Amino acid sequence: MIYFDNAATTLHKPPQVIEAVTKAMTTMGNCGRGAHPSSRRAAGAVYEARQKLARFFSCSREDHVVFTANATHSLNLAICGLFSPGDHVITTVAEHNSVLRPLYRLEGQIGLQTDYIPTDAKGVLQLSKLEEFLRPNTKAVICTHMSNVTGNITDLETVSAFTKKHGLLLVVDGSQSAGYLPISMKEMAIDILCVTGHKGLLGPQGTGCLLLREGISLRPLTVGGSGVQSYLKEQPPKLPEALEAGTLNTHGIAGLSAAMDYLEEMGLEVIKEKEDALTRYFYENIRHIDGIRIHGDPEGSHGPIVALNLPNMDSATLADCLAEDYGIATRPGAHCAPLMHKALGTDTQGLVRFSFSHFNTCEEVDLAVTALKELRQQD
Amino acid sequence: MIYFDNAATTLHKPPQVIEAVTKAMTTMGNCGRGAHPSSRRAAGAVYEARQKLARFFSCSREDHVVFTANATHSLNLAICGLFSPGDHVITTVAEHNSVLRPLYRLEGQIGLQTDYIPTDAKGVLQLSKLEEFLRPNTKAVICTHMSNVTGNITDLETVSAFTKKHGLLLVVDGSQSAGYLPISMKEMAIDILCVTGHKGLLGPQGTGCLLLREGISLRPLTVGGSGVQSYLKEQPPKLPEALEAGTLNTHGIAGLSAAMDYLEEMGLEVIKEKEDALTRYFYENIRHIDGIRIHGDPEGSHGPIVALNLPNMDSATLADCLAEDYGIATRPGAHCAPLMHKALGTDTQGLVRFSFSHFNTCEEVDLAVTALKELRQQD
Repeated sequence: MIYFDNAATTLHKPPQVIEAVTKAMTTMGNCGRGAHPSSRRAAGAVYEARQKLARFFSCSREDHVVFTANATHSLNLAICGLFSPGDHVITTVAEHNSVLRPLYRLEGQIGLQTDYIPTDAKGVLQLSKLEEFLRPNTKAVICTHMSNVTGNITDLETVSAFTKKHGLLLVVDGSQSAGYLPISMKEMAIDILCVTGHKGLLGPQGTGCLLLREGISLRPLTVGGSGVQSYLKEQPPKLPEALEAGTLNTHGIAGLSAAMDYLEEMGLEVIKEKEDALTRYFYENIRHIDGIRIHGDPEGSHGPIVALNLPNMDSATLADCLAEDYGIATRPGAHCAPLMHKALGTDTQGLVRFSFSHFNTCEEVDLAVTALKELRQQD
Repeated sequence: MIYFDNAATTLHKPPQVIEAVTKAMTTMGNCGRGAHPSSRRAAGAVYEARQKLARFFSCSREDHVVFTANATHSLNLAICGLFSPGDHVITTVAEHNSVLRPLYRLEGQIGLQTDYIPTDAKGVLQLSKLEEFLRPNTKAVICTHMSNVTGNITDLETVSAFTKKHGLLLVVDGSQSAGYLPISMKEMAIDILCVTGHKGLLGPQGTGCLLLREGISLRPLTVGGSGVQSYLKEQPPKLPEALEAGTLNTHGIAGLSAAMDYLEEMGLEVIKEKEDALTRYFYENIRHIDGIRIHGDPEGSHGPIVALNLPNMDSATLADCLAEDYGIATRPGAHCAPLMHKALGTDTQGLVRFSFSHFNTCEEVDLAVTALKELRQQD
């Protein structure tokens, strides 16, 4: 199988990630729940992973790296923990349901006020409108770093300049960009960064994290065992325990930690160059297929995703043909980002997303190009 | 190292669990996010795991098995999703902070009314008092199946008779009992069962689940991507998606699924018999140590835990000596169950918990007995 669904989850993990998980499953006790060697080993591994993630994303404190189960958990924690009645937030139509649905829920529950930055016809966010949406009660901007539908990259410098100028918080969903684009919380003045471990970071499923700038306080989403200050009725206020109730996924975190080593050794610039080359190669070879519609702005600031439709063919049918006749894995349909589909006019047809990893090859891309050309002729 | 901290997490996982995780990490895409083989493989593995868990716990529907990150997540989901202002709940002083802290929070947030069943001097719950605590607005009883501090087993039949008689919901924390005691949601009339995957169920960390009786409805704790009905503003109402926003830990779930096979093949009665034999053997050999204080009721209905203190020695000191001088891993201090420690009078000294797995041996227990005797003499 040729796997072009890396934006859903990367299938090819570096061997050291798998080895680290295996080793953790045979040697690690419960992190922070005892002082014997296997418990200390777990605690040490988790601490190392925090250090690596803090360094990777230029987060000023490793104890402000909070482990979660996935980006959805991170985003719910950020959004539910941040806002109070009367707050206004600016977000975008490029957001995933893991941002939209928590916001919709708070609209109903606490009367949160929300505005959505629109896109142009290519799905590019119209950030020039940021100022128009500013209100006296605006508390934060929440935006994705890269659209999971189109691969369009958000110009975070512009957003960051806006949030700094007006003293707003900047919450970034780095689910699609982490492990592909460099993200510096310090340079980009990001207050809360939410990422998942199992996509570009190449770690196991069941891992994610939320990184906080020092001084930002969040109400916890879950409360419970903390391993420290057991007699407090509330979750202990100190990070990371404040936001990490219950037993951590040490086995998964050990894998993510090994993945961070791989990324550091390989270097993001090498990974990005490889993925960009594959994406460009694919795009250049399919863009002239008669009637093909390519969504997003692949000639602009764009990640390793190409979203497309063939005319007169439902996206699910196209993806099924690719999978069954050519052994090519893509993702069709709606991609949990309903406002983006509406903006692109693909809310009925859906779209087929090709998403690349640096483990993919030009030969695999060649096969996909041939497949699309043949399917178009049969259409 | 001799590992007697199995109530914190089981360190020895069956080899097939590790193999299943490894295989999942090399073959499985994102469950429910596409229709290509690696995504379908993930979806199939998750569905199989639901079936096994439903069968294991006699839950009537496999789609009412909801995967979570751990028991804390399950319990927060149950407690935050169930209660409304004006409700009253009966719980116990044997509960873990993963029950207590969510309840305390709701007391403050929505005025939830809570009563706590006390224990006798051996930490045994005084269930005869259940009727005294009943109010017209009592909605549920939440109780642990086995104390994580003492190993005392809750007489669920009595609790269940009470909840059935008065039409209350029964929420059970099976964190410590699952994989040791049989739990039948059907026979015990359990409405919501919360378990973790990484203790007696022998699965990986980062896995847990909540099992719901048909007809019980919970508000979701997190909302976001669902893979289906992307255009709904709310989380889709159908289980399990209703309570499972975001990418599942398919890698961990595959491991848990393999662990369920192991448990089925081995049989709980065999596991229980082995663990009971080790626990009894340990207890019988230490109970006459001069001045030793054994907490809980090891001669009553009791699981594979022995909680103890030596006189004049802080529990942390004792556990450190056991670890450093004898290579024996136990857990000292407070065990995230503050009300139980107050009931036992161990809130200052803490206590040392020995918790056994069927992978432990009599020879290991012999060493622990010798260690305790020697440490007592030095005391």
